[in-house]
Amino acid sequence: MTKPLISLAALFALTSPALAQDAPAAPSPNQIVAEAPVEEWLDIPAQDLIVMTLAPAANGSGRTVVIQLMPEPFSQSWVDNIRTLARAQWYDGITVNRVQDNYVVQWGDPNYDNPETDGAAKPLPEGLAETHERDYVFEYPRDPGGDPSYYPLSAVLRTSWIKGLVEQGIIPDGAQFREALSRQKGDSYALETAYIGGWPVGMEAEFQPKHRDIAWPVHCYGMVGVGRNLAPDAGTGAELYTVIGHAPRHLDRNIALVGRIVEGIEHLSSLPRGKGQLGFYEDESKRVPILSVRVASDLPEAERPAFEYLSTGGETFARYADARANRRDPFFNVPAGGADICNIPVPVRRVAD
Amino acid sequence: MTKPLISLAALFALTSPALAQDAPAAPSPNQIVAEAPVEEWLDIPAQDLIVMTLAPAANGSGRTVVIQLMPEPFSQSWVDNIRTLARAQWYDGITVNRVQDNYVVQWGDPNYDNPETDGAAKPLPEGLAETHERDYVFEYPRDPGGDPSYYPLSAVLRTSWIKGLVEQGIIPDGAQFREALSRQKGDSYALETAYIGGWPVGMEAEFQPKHRDIAWPVHCYGMVGVGRNLAPDAGTGAELYTVIGHAPRHLDRNIALVGRIVEGIEHLSSLPRGKGQLGFYEDESKRVPILSVRVASDLPEAERPAFEYLSTGGETFARYADARANRRDPFFNVPAGGADICNIPVPVRRVAD
Repeated sequence: MTKPLISLAALFALTSPALAQDAPAAPSPNQIVAEAPVEEWLDIPAQDLIVMTLAPAANGSGRTVVIQLMPEPFSQSWVDNIRTLARAQWYDGITVNRVQDNYVVQWGDPNYDNPETDGAAKPLPEGLAETHERDYVFEYPRDPGGDPSYYPLSAVLRTSWIKGLVEQGIIPDGAQFREALSRQKGDSYALETAYIGGWPVGMEAEFQPKHRDIAWPVHCYGMVGVGRNLAPDAGTGAELYTVIGHAPRHLDRNIALVGRIVEGIEHLSSLPRGKGQLGFYEDESKRVPILSVRVASDLPEAERPAFEYLSTGGETFARYADARANRRDPFFNVPAGGADICNIPVPVRRVAD
Repeated sequence: MTKPLISLAALFALTSPALAQDAPAAPSPNQIVAEAPVEEWLDIPAQDLIVMTLAPAANGSGRTVVIQLMPEPFSQSWVDNIRTLARAQWYDGITVNRVQDNYVVQWGDPNYDNPETDGAAKPLPEGLAETHERDYVFEYPRDPGGDPSYYPLSAVLRTSWIKGLVEQGIIPDGAQFREALSRQKGDSYALETAYIGGWPVGMEAEFQPKHRDIAWPVHCYGMVGVGRNLAPDAGTGAELYTVIGHAPRHLDRNIALVGRIVEGIEHLSSLPRGKGQLGFYEDESKRVPILSVRVASDLPEAERPAFEYLSTGGETFARYADARANRRDPFFNVPAGGADICNIPVPVRRVAD
């Protein structure tokens, strides 16, 4: 378990450990990312970064969380609202109210739909956009030839896995090839998974009310979503949560995802678990105050954080994804020959001052 | 996000929300489990329960973690060693040394292979069994007719999903049916997933050195595994970890899994993250002392905890798994039509005194 130094997969050596020794030493996924050419790193616009400052920890150390909001075409009504709420300083003084183990941390007005309290809700500012369930998903062509950020994960992993079996002579390129295809590894929630514009998505065809190809962002660790009440309420963006456990993908297409935490998630994931229903804190004193939430572009330049992400359309991302799915260094006996999309996070890093 | 009251799936209403209103109200997965007949709850033997007592928290509250060890046919050399180490009181006085966000908490001798220290390792007791990489997996027939605990998750979900599409007239029972099958949802890591004897496993055919059908336990949240150094070292059981993030399934078949935490995981998952390499604590004072580790059957009867798990071969488990994979209550717009095995945890509960 210790020192899992992870090497690049020997792509075609999927079931024969002996072959690994013949393969040249290869860089780990992290090394692959570290060696990416500078042009494959893309700036995150400052207006897409949200800086959330929690009250200091018991030992006095600061706790800052940075969230990257999603760009178009994802969830823009909620994303706009989050900027509006931040600029109205509405979030200042709200609290972290819910910490449910292996599920979510949720913050907002402590009286919003909280089974442990019954106080009056905090009034929302003017100017919030209406939000709709239909915007949980967006129309996206199955074969998006013109999108240079597109990386079709399911298709790539499936093809390389089958190819490996054929090249090793484990299955011939014929009837058994097709049999293997019909018993393929895949995603448990979507017919296809992919990356679009630096974000993980599920993809499928929707048949009602009419046929169209759709995509939607998926609930991986650290993704940020919009709390809501029962449908058709789609939430405003005032109530937010992040995933701190195994990806709850059953929430995909049922809640708006608006971003991901790119720094400081440990300040949320290590909070004490709430003992009330759904992990709400029964004891009000456990709630963690949120001192301020600001759009990075509104901060003075000296205080403005800068982040960049690895292009999901570049060569480095493809090598990194393959290395995450097929680990062959001395620690590993058996490469998986696949990975779920939440185990291949898009690399994001702080830009040095 | 709040109050996700989850109903039984309307199994055939996979893409048309309107149908949900015609379906009768149905119990949530938790309600299904709560209503299971008593004979579907199976006792966990006291010799398979390990009670680990951590030093009290800063506020003086107790911290006890209960681990269920795996029964045969899983990982028995390591499981035997864990009982031997507990009975030698070898674990008493070791520490939690590593907390890596979205990955693992690891405990053991702080000088075992720790990049942050270089002290001498604690001598191990006599009588430990040898362990072997080959025992990460076990031979298991693809169609285990005689095992009443067997529940073939992948096959069940795939069949019900396709059946739903046909019954709604979305695909006919012909060429497009087969097309849908060929683009099926599945598991990203194994050709099949299933439950055997109350535990989640992956299944596949292994072709070298000879053809055989195999199964292996999988790395879900809360599973406990054996730390080791580079292969062929397979670890003794003195160094243990548990998963506190998205299931790191690439570790399947590469490390021995020996059990799962059935109570108290929040005492580990909410610990401060380590700031050293791989999440090891750089500051020794952050290590959490483990006061004692005991096999429950060795404790005085009054102190002995008792737990039971829901039979994975029973009717209730099948209904529960379906309800987890297809959620149709008013909170949900779109049931997933599938779930990965780590999102369908086997219900385990404490038996009231």
